[in-house]
Amino acid sequence: MKAFSRVTFLGGATGPWRVEKVSSLRGAPLPAVGAVQKVEADTFVTDPAAAWALQGVRSNERYLNRGEKTQLAKLQAGLGRPDSTRAALIPITKSNAWWDLPQDERRSILEERSHHIEIGSRFLPAIARRLFHGRDLGADFDFLTWFEFAEADVGAFDDLVGALRRTEEWHYVEREVDLRLSLDRR
Amino acid sequence: MKAFSRVTFLGGATGPWRVEKVSSLRGAPLPAVGAVQKVEADTFVTDPAAAWALQGVRSNERYLNRGEKTQLAKLQAGLGRPDSTRAALIPITKSNAWWDLPQDERRSILEERSHHIEIGSRFLPAIARRLFHGRDLGADFDFLTWFEFAEADVGAFDDLVGALRRTEEWHYVEREVDLRLSLDRR
Repeated sequence: MKAFSRVTFLGGATGPWRVEKVSSLRGAPLPAVGAVQKVEADTFVTDPAAAWALQGVRSNERYLNRGEKTQLAKLQAGLGRPDSTRAALIPITKSNAWWDLPQDERRSILEERSHHIEIGSRFLPAIARRLFHGRDLGADFDFLTWFEFAEADVGAFDDLVGALRRTEEWHYVEREVDLRLSLDRR
Repeated sequence: MKAFSRVTFLGGATGPWRVEKVSSLRGAPLPAVGAVQKVEADTFVTDPAAAWALQGVRSNERYLNRGEKTQLAKLQAGLGRPDSTRAALIPITKSNAWWDLPQDERRSILEERSHHIEIGSRFLPAIARRLFHGRDLGADFDFLTWFEFAEADVGAFDDLVGALRRTEEWHYVEREVDLRLSLDRR
């Protein structure tokens, strides 16, 4: 495992990211909270004051081919940019029908038919992204996707998630919560 | 997660599978034990008497295409056959160089150049197999591979692992232990 490969998102009353809006798009919602804290570390963390804790790990790429990986590496920006005062945490779980598909069919649906990688790359470097995997852990969600962007790119982010949600791939999403966050500078 | 998706292999003094032979092929060995117990359950189990406990989860296929998946489903036999009195537990960890490769290159090395799936299918249904994943868990090994076969197929199993170890894919294996087991009917 890489150093700092584990993430815990703690939802509670306090934390650096203030919750601006929550949409429960499919499946069970998450208990309402005022703030989110993201902790990347070697271990998962707990906080008795948190209403929820979501766990994930950074892992290898599951679908990217060499050309896409090279292209994304060129375009994408890192997390923690000074003007990245907006963020989104989008936990997602896909159906058993998705996970039972062979690798070639998941790849075809994800990219050749849904253009997931291509859509995401259109919004680089403005929308920075980090994917955490939870499925093998038996975590609450298969994926925790974290996005950071500037206030000026809030509309672009809406376009990005809107485009993804209209794809064939999204037919396989059975739980999705969308938390929009704002960096609390107090 | 599927029911009973987690496995714990407990190495210790007692257990249904007697250790016949252990080969530490690459990387650190495992402490010597006399027997192995395999526990598939909803949770990982612990045993204070065990010398080691290896954890893994059943997960989705990472490389199989539709044709291969269909073909394997037709050919393969389940675990627990009455004449499956021999088994092998082969824990494996691959290098960071492997995990950093994009999906298409890992697939090419695994199948188009190393014929991993094709080699395994040649030994079906004689050699039954179940793969558990440990990497996302931060477990001791990336994979725990479990094989069951009849005493008459011990030589075939040697041929199978011998063929795999001569492949390009195996250049990326940085730790491998091979435990040969025999069902203890006492």
